[in-house]
Amino acid sequence: MAEQTVPARRDPKSIEKAIAALTAKFGNRLVTSRAVREQHGNTITWIENQPPDAVIYPQSTEDVQEIVRTCAVHRVPIVPFGQGTSLEGHVNAPQGGVSVDFRDMNKVLAVHAEDLDCVIEPGITRKQLNEYLRDQGVFFPIDPGADASLGGMAATRCSGTNAVRYGTMKDNVLALKVVMPSGEVMTTARRAKKSSAGYDLTRLIVGSEGTLGVITELTLRLSGIPEAISGGICPFPSVEACCNAAIMTIQTGIPVARIELLDALQVRAVNLYSRLGLSETPMLFLEFHGTQASVAEQSERFGEIAKEFGGGPFQWTTQPEERTRLWEARHSAALSTFTLRPGSKMIPTDVCVPISRLAECVTETQRDIAESNLVAPIVGHVGDGNFHLTLLVDMDDPAEFKVAKAFSERLVERALAMDGTCTGEHGVGQGKMKYLEAEHGLPALAAMRAVKRALDPDDIMNPGKLVPLG
Amino acid sequence: MAEQTVPARRDPKSIEKAIAALTAKFGNRLVTSRAVREQHGNTITWIENQPPDAVIYPQSTEDVQEIVRTCAVHRVPIVPFGQGTSLEGHVNAPQGGVSVDFRDMNKVLAVHAEDLDCVIEPGITRKQLNEYLRDQGVFFPIDPGADASLGGMAATRCSGTNAVRYGTMKDNVLALKVVMPSGEVMTTARRAKKSSAGYDLTRLIVGSEGTLGVITELTLRLSGIPEAISGGICPFPSVEACCNAAIMTIQTGIPVARIELLDALQVRAVNLYSRLGLSETPMLFLEFHGTQASVAEQSERFGEIAKEFGGGPFQWTTQPEERTRLWEARHSAALSTFTLRPGSKMIPTDVCVPISRLAECVTETQRDIAESNLVAPIVGHVGDGNFHLTLLVDMDDPAEFKVAKAFSERLVERALAMDGTCTGEHGVGQGKMKYLEAEHGLPALAAMRAVKRALDPDDIMNPGKLVPLG
Repeated sequence: MAEQTVPARRDPKSIEKAIAALTAKFGNRLVTSRAVREQHGNTITWIENQPPDAVIYPQSTEDVQEIVRTCAVHRVPIVPFGQGTSLEGHVNAPQGGVSVDFRDMNKVLAVHAEDLDCVIEPGITRKQLNEYLRDQGVFFPIDPGADASLGGMAATRCSGTNAVRYGTMKDNVLALKVVMPSGEVMTTARRAKKSSAGYDLTRLIVGSEGTLGVITELTLRLSGIPEAISGGICPFPSVEACCNAAIMTIQTGIPVARIELLDALQVRAVNLYSRLGLSETPMLFLEFHGTQASVAEQSERFGEIAKEFGGGPFQWTTQPEERTRLWEARHSAALSTFTLRPGSKMIPTDVCVPISRLAECVTETQRDIAESNLVAPIVGHVGDGNFHLTLLVDMDDPAEFKVAKAFSERLVERALAMDGTCTGEHGVGQGKMKYLEAEHGLPALAAMRAVKRALDPDDIMNPGKLVPLG
Repeated sequence: MAEQTVPARRDPKSIEKAIAALTAKFGNRLVTSRAVREQHGNTITWIENQPPDAVIYPQSTEDVQEIVRTCAVHRVPIVPFGQGTSLEGHVNAPQGGVSVDFRDMNKVLAVHAEDLDCVIEPGITRKQLNEYLRDQGVFFPIDPGADASLGGMAATRCSGTNAVRYGTMKDNVLALKVVMPSGEVMTTARRAKKSSAGYDLTRLIVGSEGTLGVITELTLRLSGIPEAISGGICPFPSVEACCNAAIMTIQTGIPVARIELLDALQVRAVNLYSRLGLSETPMLFLEFHGTQASVAEQSERFGEIAKEFGGGPFQWTTQPEERTRLWEARHSAALSTFTLRPGSKMIPTDVCVPISRLAECVTETQRDIAESNLVAPIVGHVGDGNFHLTLLVDMDDPAEFKVAKAFSERLVERALAMDGTCTGEHGVGQGKMKYLEAEHGLPALAAMRAVKRALDPDDIMNPGKLVPLG
């Protein structure tokens, strides 16, 4: 079913030798059982499962150096693995090799509250980290849908609902420790908040999806837990009205922390799932962070903007329980979608366009969904121009799969034609490689290839992902 | 006087041929007069002037492609030139070659107010851009001391007083058009606010100081002009108290827009220069952006924090004229320093440390200044942990120059020992190359070299800067 070209597996004898050498070093921290290997390939989307030949659980940067050095000798692929929640086949092993699972490297190494930063191992998840930080009055704001590992989040340059205020992983990683294909450990930057000292290696690695090296330590920028949070929901007559209200909110400088769109079908899904009884019309879900006075002011100002575009009433509150109740529809959006079509599998999408084109892009896409007879609710991080459709597809119906894939391609083409990107936050992996040339043009692709070849000449770092080496 | 090793000039015959070919194409837009060439080498710091062999004034990306292609054939260096305000010898031509002056490429190509972005040519300065944008309710926040060109600001990854709130050039460049050493035009990204589509070429070029390619177009992120601005000044008993108040301000989440330190000597300089009669004690200069209510709340909260650390009174206002009067000392800081020692020349410094180490770093540095018998007032972007000393040196006294250089090296070592950087915002150029290994370590330096060699194999792009090729 997968349509990516499957490159040849590496030499089986070399793989065998590397695994033998690694078994001698790692003992039962290296696993080759079929079940474990299959869990370490892609499991949650349409992309077929391509399991690695072995899974290793390192406990230190030195362990990772050992793994990389051994694999380098035998030219065996290395596929970093966090929580396996990535959506574009990033953890598959199309050419075989070893999956490096960071389950045991999940410690917080230091918290510098005065500097608003912390140093962590890559295996810790975002929820675990925030649990750990809570007592210290700080938090890490990036929140993809899944409880992903921080290493994986850096590798895919991910973001989430808070990005409109707090930025993406590119803005919140201060420095990285990376085991390079040579086995050497590169430190990308110091802990200073800013620097002009040379090429920006931090941001070269953030978003490189394990194709240049393996992240073994992250220094993250933290934010103070806001003194007050207000949250609320606001119905609108149309998706266009939602987008226009979002544009106006940002343009007038309201420092909105979250501004999320649910289309009418997505609202219907959460009604079915959580029996909420919301009116099935497009809605914005908002959150404001600040002092008590400032979140009240922000909320009131947004209410006025909503009215201008025919929306409202804007119900909002600063009470935590009440806020959670209002936001319940948004929180259950991901789980609720399958109620629209039990038994289906999902094809995720992730385009992002300049916000001025968002209404047009969503509206055209909704028309296309209807004309294609597909079931696909929409959730959007509208402050960033990023939206996701969950295409619910019967994978046993090849004709429907074909229609859904063709629809996906039109969606990407539509976004590119509007100066947008094929992926706002999920990454390229295997699923989006074919769009890179159309998105960036040949000179940019040539530069990416040159960088990949310069840093990983034997292509052992997560091969078959991100850069089409041609 | 310069201590950098001066690499050999390129083959004079090749340079001659390239200039002949370029003269045929560019006519009187290519200049070889000595005066113009010398203006295009480093002129404002201790680093010696190394003029190019010719200066060319392109008018389009195609012109730059012509220049690069011609120079590539003859392996002749290309040195991009904006306003010539960089502080580390970035515009020098140590190996000869042509300076590409963007004087004539200074247009605003598009403003997308709804998307809060604009597309510009690299030669426009930050003040010219903001003048152009003012009517549209938006502005570009990055403000280095000089009225630099935006191309140069991107190339050096610069920042300024607003960085604590608005970030640096890395956060405010959305996309770039870059003429690569091959002569091809690379576009680094689309206009979408975020993307996970491949290596972050935008941030690879931002801060690369012209060593990977020549920027010919920038898409910049803009901000809404705040509805209200409050500004004020606050004296403190010590530099340490200033730093502690700054830490607390940021930690409590007050979204301060500017928070600038002047040490007692710098205050004395502005008193001498502007006859202000301020008490000669360390001071913080602050600015808050938001609504009328929110800037008042922020200002009051800061006043309380200042009191906790023995500072105050905090005088602030939202009236523009009054604000300008209060900030006059900060605005005249750069010009005022020479009043402390007329006839001297400056050695700029630019370390940045984690904010928790800032007080210690500044205090130790002040002791070192005193012990070295140097004159060096301090200005600090304390919200970022970044501070500048202006070392006022009599260049005709070799002994004093030596003392000043030795002091500079100790300052960098001190910052590095505190997990800081040798340059927070000025860049590497020629002056800081020797610190890169100590700051980043060999594996990072190897990665920088590999990237440079992969993208510019003949080393024609601003050679002798940033990466020591070894």
